[in-house]
Amino acid sequence: MDEESVLLTGAKGRVGRAILDGLADEYDWRLLFHNPPPEEPDHPYLVGDVVDEELMAEACEGIDTIIHLAGDPRPEAPWDSVLENNIHGTKVIMQAAVDAGVEKFVYASSNHAVGHYETERKPDLYRAHDEFRLDGTELPRPGNFYGVSKAAGETLGRFYHDEHGLKVCCIRIGNLTKGHPPIDYERGQAMWLSHRDCAHLHQCAIDAAYDYEIVYGISDNDRKYYSLERAKEVLGYDPQDNSAHFEGEERVVDGD
Amino acid sequence: MDEESVLLTGAKGRVGRAILDGLADEYDWRLLFHNPPPEEPDHPYLVGDVVDEELMAEACEGIDTIIHLAGDPRPEAPWDSVLENNIHGTKVIMQAAVDAGVEKFVYASSNHAVGHYETERKPDLYRAHDEFRLDGTELPRPGNFYGVSKAAGETLGRFYHDEHGLKVCCIRIGNLTKGHPPIDYERGQAMWLSHRDCAHLHQCAIDAAYDYEIVYGISDNDRKYYSLERAKEVLGYDPQDNSAHFEGEERVVDGD
Repeated sequence: MDEESVLLTGAKGRVGRAILDGLADEYDWRLLFHNPPPEEPDHPYLVGDVVDEELMAEACEGIDTIIHLAGDPRPEAPWDSVLENNIHGTKVIMQAAVDAGVEKFVYASSNHAVGHYETERKPDLYRAHDEFRLDGTELPRPGNFYGVSKAAGETLGRFYHDEHGLKVCCIRIGNLTKGHPPIDYERGQAMWLSHRDCAHLHQCAIDAAYDYEIVYGISDNDRKYYSLERAKEVLGYDPQDNSAHFEGEERVVDGD
Repeated sequence: MDEESVLLTGAKGRVGRAILDGLADEYDWRLLFHNPPPEEPDHPYLVGDVVDEELMAEACEGIDTIIHLAGDPRPEAPWDSVLENNIHGTKVIMQAAVDAGVEKFVYASSNHAVGHYETERKPDLYRAHDEFRLDGTELPRPGNFYGVSKAAGETLGRFYHDEHGLKVCCIRIGNLTKGHPPIDYERGQAMWLSHRDCAHLHQCAIDAAYDYEIVYGISDNDRKYYSLERAKEVLGYDPQDNSAHFEGEERVVDGD
């Protein structure tokens, strides 16, 4: 009964499954699915849309921390969809969180919020010798409308923190794959996030003390252009994986 | 016929009038009004909404530079209005600008995009001895939903620049008043922008060469917490006014 209550939105997505795989027994979960789940979940759940204010009020009741993954996850998503589902949806659930007295809000931002920093620097920045780093203090440079929407969500988080005291951690998630990192794809290896590091990072964001943070969500890859300093320092993130450990090995691409 | 063609949206607002008062003869103007203007304008004009894609295509045709002021200007505007008019509206007109081959886009951002930087620093930062400065490289900290929408517009501008080559100058406009600066209001004096400096700054943004910029739009006030360095360096901004010159004088509040 003293267990931390955590609302996870977008529970059926890839990030949501990585988190639940690793942390199912750690918290008192409540899940939000966009559509009815194909099999009965192991945790209490709701079904519906994040832009539904009444449903969000119900979802947030009695919750300590929200992990907000819901939204249109497609990098190529059209503007109208990200405007409604990602920007407006994030505002609706943040408002519901504040109204319900939720303490912490972990927001799934994305590498796409800063995609255009790569434009004049690739492919060098994908390589281990390159020292260019983004650290979360830089202004967004989205590579698509999806990235624009993720940057807007970060700004909404800043507003809800400054104005209402909500503690907000934005995680600019890299490239999550199950098993090994992407093959023959330097960019994907540079921003790889393993399943267990993903679960651990979100556990850190649930447990740590902070006000407003923007951190990068990748494993401790030799190839990297995202700094992990802030995640390590503020959240205590201690990644176990590194895409370099898989280089040169024989492997098959999994279907995830 | 070689005159620069400039589309001004939000032509009836306070900033729009300051610009037209100062620069009426400098460019080949086309105006966009939200409602039919009460008296016949001195320039060609259209009437309608920035979210109207067909109208924006028509408005942008043959235009070199857009000054985009239109939107809900109220700091206390509700979310739904700024989501539609400011965020979505800015996307619609930026897309129309790119489709029409417009070269430059001057975007009216606002001090409200960074309002919460003041929270722990006031009233000291409003005073001449205080050396705290915002310079446009900092992440937004909006003080209201209007400020959230202005920050989102800046990010949209970054995207349209990076992705489509549109040259974008975001001006975080301070406190524009006609005649003298606000009286007995330190914050207003610190972010004061005179009418003539407003017109001159926008002339600079129409004429100068740049890629993507965020600058502050205030006069050269002794009291200030916005840096003018970038506006001076990149745009050639040379402000003539200073709210300190009005201190101690007798004056009346104008109705603007």
